[in-house]
Amino acid sequence: MLTKVPTLDTQADPYKWQDEQGFWARCAHPCRGMWYDIKRRLPYYWSDIIDGWAYRVFAGTIRIFFINLLPALAFQLDMSHNTGGFFGINEALLSSALAAIVFSTLSAQPLTVVGVTGLISLFNYTIYDIIKLHDVTIYPRFMVWVGIWAAIWHWAIAITNLCDYMRTITDFSSQTFGLYVGTIYVVKGCEELAINFYDGQIANGFASSMIAILYFMTVYYLERIGSTSFATSGVRKFISDYAYVLATVWWTGFSHFPGNLAYADFIRLPITRAFYPTVDRPWVVAFWTLEVKWIFVALPIGFLMMLLFYYDHNVSSLTAQARNFPLKKPAGFHWDFFLLGCTCFAGGILNIPLPNGLVPQAPVHTDSLTYYDDTPEYISTKDHDTEPVIVRHNTKATKVAEQRISHFLMGLALVGMMTRPLLIVLRTMPRAIFSGVFFTVGLGGILTNPILVHKLKFLFTQRQFIPPHEPLLKVKRSQIWHYLGWQLLGWATTVAISQTIAAIGFPVLIMALIPLRWKVLPRLFTGEELEIMDHLTADGEVVLVSLGGKPELPEDRLLRNKESRGREDPERGAAGMAAGMVQVSERDAEFNNEGKGALRRKNKKGGRDEDHDGTYDSERTQVNSESSTPEGVDARR
Amino acid sequence: MLTKVPTLDTQADPYKWQDEQGFWARCAHPCRGMWYDIKRRLPYYWSDIIDGWAYRVFAGTIRIFFINLLPALAFQLDMSHNTGGFFGINEALLSSALAAIVFSTLSAQPLTVVGVTGLISLFNYTIYDIIKLHDVTIYPRFMVWVGIWAAIWHWAIAITNLCDYMRTITDFSSQTFGLYVGTIYVVKGCEELAINFYDGQIANGFASSMIAILYFMTVYYLERIGSTSFATSGVRKFISDYAYVLATVWWTGFSHFPGNLAYADFIRLPITRAFYPTVDRPWVVAFWTLEVKWIFVALPIGFLMMLLFYYDHNVSSLTAQARNFPLKKPAGFHWDFFLLGCTCFAGGILNIPLPNGLVPQAPVHTDSLTYYDDTPEYISTKDHDTEPVIVRHNTKATKVAEQRISHFLMGLALVGMMTRPLLIVLRTMPRAIFSGVFFTVGLGGILTNPILVHKLKFLFTQRQFIPPHEPLLKVKRSQIWHYLGWQLLGWATTVAISQTIAAIGFPVLIMALIPLRWKVLPRLFTGEELEIMDHLTADGEVVLVSLGGKPELPEDRLLRNKESRGREDPERGAAGMAAGMVQVSERDAEFNNEGKGALRRKNKKGGRDEDHDGTYDSERTQVNSESSTPEGVDARR
Repeated sequence: MLTKVPTLDTQADPYKWQDEQGFWARCAHPCRGMWYDIKRRLPYYWSDIIDGWAYRVFAGTIRIFFINLLPALAFQLDMSHNTGGFFGINEALLSSALAAIVFSTLSAQPLTVVGVTGLISLFNYTIYDIIKLHDVTIYPRFMVWVGIWAAIWHWAIAITNLCDYMRTITDFSSQTFGLYVGTIYVVKGCEELAINFYDGQIANGFASSMIAILYFMTVYYLERIGSTSFATSGVRKFISDYAYVLATVWWTGFSHFPGNLAYADFIRLPITRAFYPTVDRPWVVAFWTLEVKWIFVALPIGFLMMLLFYYDHNVSSLTAQARNFPLKKPAGFHWDFFLLGCTCFAGGILNIPLPNGLVPQAPVHTDSLTYYDDTPEYISTKDHDTEPVIVRHNTKATKVAEQRISHFLMGLALVGMMTRPLLIVLRTMPRAIFSGVFFTVGLGGILTNPILVHKLKFLFTQRQFIPPHEPLLKVKRSQIWHYLGWQLLGWATTVAISQTIAAIGFPVLIMALIPLRWKVLPRLFTGEELEIMDHLTADGEVVLVSLGGKPELPEDRLLRNKESRGREDPERGAAGMAAGMVQVSERDAEFNNEGKGALRRKNKKGGRDEDHDGTYDSERTQVNSESSTPEGVDARR
Repeated sequence: MLTKVPTLDTQADPYKWQDEQGFWARCAHPCRGMWYDIKRRLPYYWSDIIDGWAYRVFAGTIRIFFINLLPALAFQLDMSHNTGGFFGINEALLSSALAAIVFSTLSAQPLTVVGVTGLISLFNYTIYDIIKLHDVTIYPRFMVWVGIWAAIWHWAIAITNLCDYMRTITDFSSQTFGLYVGTIYVVKGCEELAINFYDGQIANGFASSMIAILYFMTVYYLERIGSTSFATSGVRKFISDYAYVLATVWWTGFSHFPGNLAYADFIRLPITRAFYPTVDRPWVVAFWTLEVKWIFVALPIGFLMMLLFYYDHNVSSLTAQARNFPLKKPAGFHWDFFLLGCTCFAGGILNIPLPNGLVPQAPVHTDSLTYYDDTPEYISTKDHDTEPVIVRHNTKATKVAEQRISHFLMGLALVGMMTRPLLIVLRTMPRAIFSGVFFTVGLGGILTNPILVHKLKFLFTQRQFIPPHEPLLKVKRSQIWHYLGWQLLGWATTVAISQTIAAIGFPVLIMALIPLRWKVLPRLFTGEELEIMDHLTADGEVVLVSLGGKPELPEDRLLRNKESRGREDPERGAAGMAAGMVQVSERDAEFNNEGKGALRRKNKKGGRDEDHDGTYDSERTQVNSESSTPEGVDARR
């Protein structure tokens, strides 16, 4: 049983911001965000430990361990291939372990798992490509400085409370980002498969392709069992919890079968001496010997790294706390970002890939810690002869084991993996498995992304099979296409740039989606259209309290301004005139807005938000339990 | 538009049999069945031609051409491999073309497509294995005699009206047979893939495995689009109609891509000189030179061949006319079986694989000629906030284009394939495609087999998610397992025997399921249990009229006897005493039984029989259109 934690009084929380207060007002009180983050979360620390003793936490640990370890190794293969072998398995494991130990014990939100992502791999080898144009020998030292600068930028952002802007993240950008990440993963999976064909190893190439495809299908179908009516909910959950474990053990074993498979001569995971860097170097290279000009070249790159993490880490944290999880304990974005600066610093000094929040995995972690109540719902039809009753699954997330133990144990297990005996176990795995992991994580995210499974599906569904209550029906089709056009443009641009040496700039593109949403979109769409098509990615009070409360969406503000002008109410009209009173009227408006917001939330409760399942017809009911994972940036589980 | 055909007055039809009349009574009027078959069907001949001019017939032609041609070629590969290359592509094409031309023009039921099956392949190479033990050179001449004897047995059965017993086929045996055929196909797919690895061609082997898996998935998912809400029903139907075409063209093209695929060095379909036998022999070998003893050895083998066709061809015909197709034109089992004797004779003389009814393809043919009406059904839920209405597909088969043109055009196309230019087109196809075809046809049958998707699914579904009206709930679970046990025993035995040289005896095992159902099962299960778990495979009046009308199921007879004994009604009791009156009382009883039968049918109308979709929850509604294909012996379409 989980401990009973006191409900947080978010209304009374002193950390509040109005959007109008702007950039400089936020910077004016250094460390205020971090201070309140700690103050808010510290009282829960003890419960974070004792809540960890539950079977769900054990299952969650196994699951998150595998879906953290396997992609980390996969990215390491990718990074290694693209950086002349500089980053190896020991670096990836050390980075993952470091991040897990630090964040599980010290972070404000231990649900957000931190580790090696695909984007850091992209980032690191793009820097390698750039450095290679000049002098490849300085790459290790240069990367240390990138880490140091990144750390400094992180600390600066955390101190000046600028994480607050993360509350403005809506599905518009987070879904686009999710689609982008999924696409990159699939591309990586293919690239990784192509490597198996190198040096004329055609048999290994095709055998690996086959295993990668079958691995993906195994995980996909095993996880789907979780949302069927098979056996009992315990058995279903067990199978879907351990889908990665089962698939990995089976297909690794398969690759060792005698017969034709033995002739395939599989390439396996390359390992090196335990606890030593992959290339012949000390853990800390003599970074102080780098020429000063290069140290300053590293500064903007450190900034871009911070920008990437600013979006990637915080979105991962937001989705780990997305609106479908009934969380009780508060988030702490400022403190966690400061901590991320620290791991950047340590990671930079040690020349390991810098860890940050894992976008598809973090929500899966929360999901695997969530207790679901799966009850049948009997719906009578008019068809009395053949099918008088339809049974559908009514899956409700009842509570979440919010604790630090699963994250911490995962960290310990990662440390264990660094030892020689377990490295040898890893060596038995064919590289093909990792392509399979890329496909599973990537396609998992793509095939559940609401851009596809809700909006595009809506546009491609025969009109008469759309339920009459579908909110998108109130929006003109051309406007839905218009909205999607922006998302798909953002997706296409970032995917394209990632294939070039300009990849290092992609965080700027991703970040640009936020002002696009807040400044441009309200001029192209009506408030009602945006209200139907877009939502805050996380709107829980306990989540947003760390970011200064719920923001007022620009379309709501426009509407409010219009209304107050239109109504000619002297008292209200006056409120807008005196600058000193702005804040008061804002607060008034916020209460009004609250009422509306509450209604909207009501429509979303129980994981049934229209963006969640995004399926029509009765199929919809089947996917209720799938809808429990947050959107856009969701792994297939 | 289809021509308006007169409704057949099945009650007035003079061809009637009571089960009690027995074997000898049936034999007593030679040719009676055939005579009435022709008399009944001939008036529809003209409409069979003019009904052929419709788009649905064109789409059906393309679809049936591909799902006839591709498996035929696949079986030919299997046969060729196992008979020392005796049967080649020319034999397979000639056999398919011969059967199609003959049956499309002369048969009573042109919906039943006839061609080369997997079982004839199994049969032919098992005979080869047996002959090889003695003297392999006599194989061609021996096969001619097998064909001749088979023909004679066919004619004998047709003349003595013994096809009548086919009306006793229930789902008990036809589903078991369907599962058996599906399993054999999957096994063949694997064997065929294994051939790609021969002579150390490991790269080709794995590349072929990959293509076979992807081919299967392509067809599977393209066909599933047909039962979604995608685009319009026209587009959906188009994609699922041409799934085989699209997949075959794409994956054949794929195998010709440059790059690593070129290194795979795919084995392709081996072709020989057009219109000539594959091995160096005349089309008609000197079969009259065979030693007399061998001619008589061929006699029982011809009988087994007839037994196989008796079951396989007639079941294929029954399923092509299964209860979910709203057919108007009468069947003609006796005449068609006589005709099958003729093709056996011709096929035997020419030494080509003997064609017969295609079990998974025949119902697909009917299905692709069926007009479906796919309308939305809005079901209100109590959940007013989030999902007040569920939309489900209400798919109804409205009519079937019952005609000869699709079958005939398919025959012409097969003749075309025998020419050199089109043989060269066939040569571009990698063998891998054919493994994919085996998987598609086999798994398609398995994954829709009610043994799995209804009864086993029922047993493995959590109790609370089973709709309360599910009829199986009235049967004890142990009795369902018991019933399934018999089916699975039948399946396991036939599959096992097929892997040995005793494979030639498997028709006996399959046939044995019918008396098992009629004599043994009524003693092990109550009438109610059997009524819920088993049904006549085809129960349409226009179908059964050719077989002497609907049979009385043994459990019903037991019940009736018990009732009439129990009631002590002197008039009814007397009816059983005088032999001369049996027939009258039978007819009475049949009317009573009719009433009950009608009620049962009602419960099944609209393709919603519980055995058809076999899915609970709301998923069920999605598969409505899948349920349109008959059960057990159904291809994935």
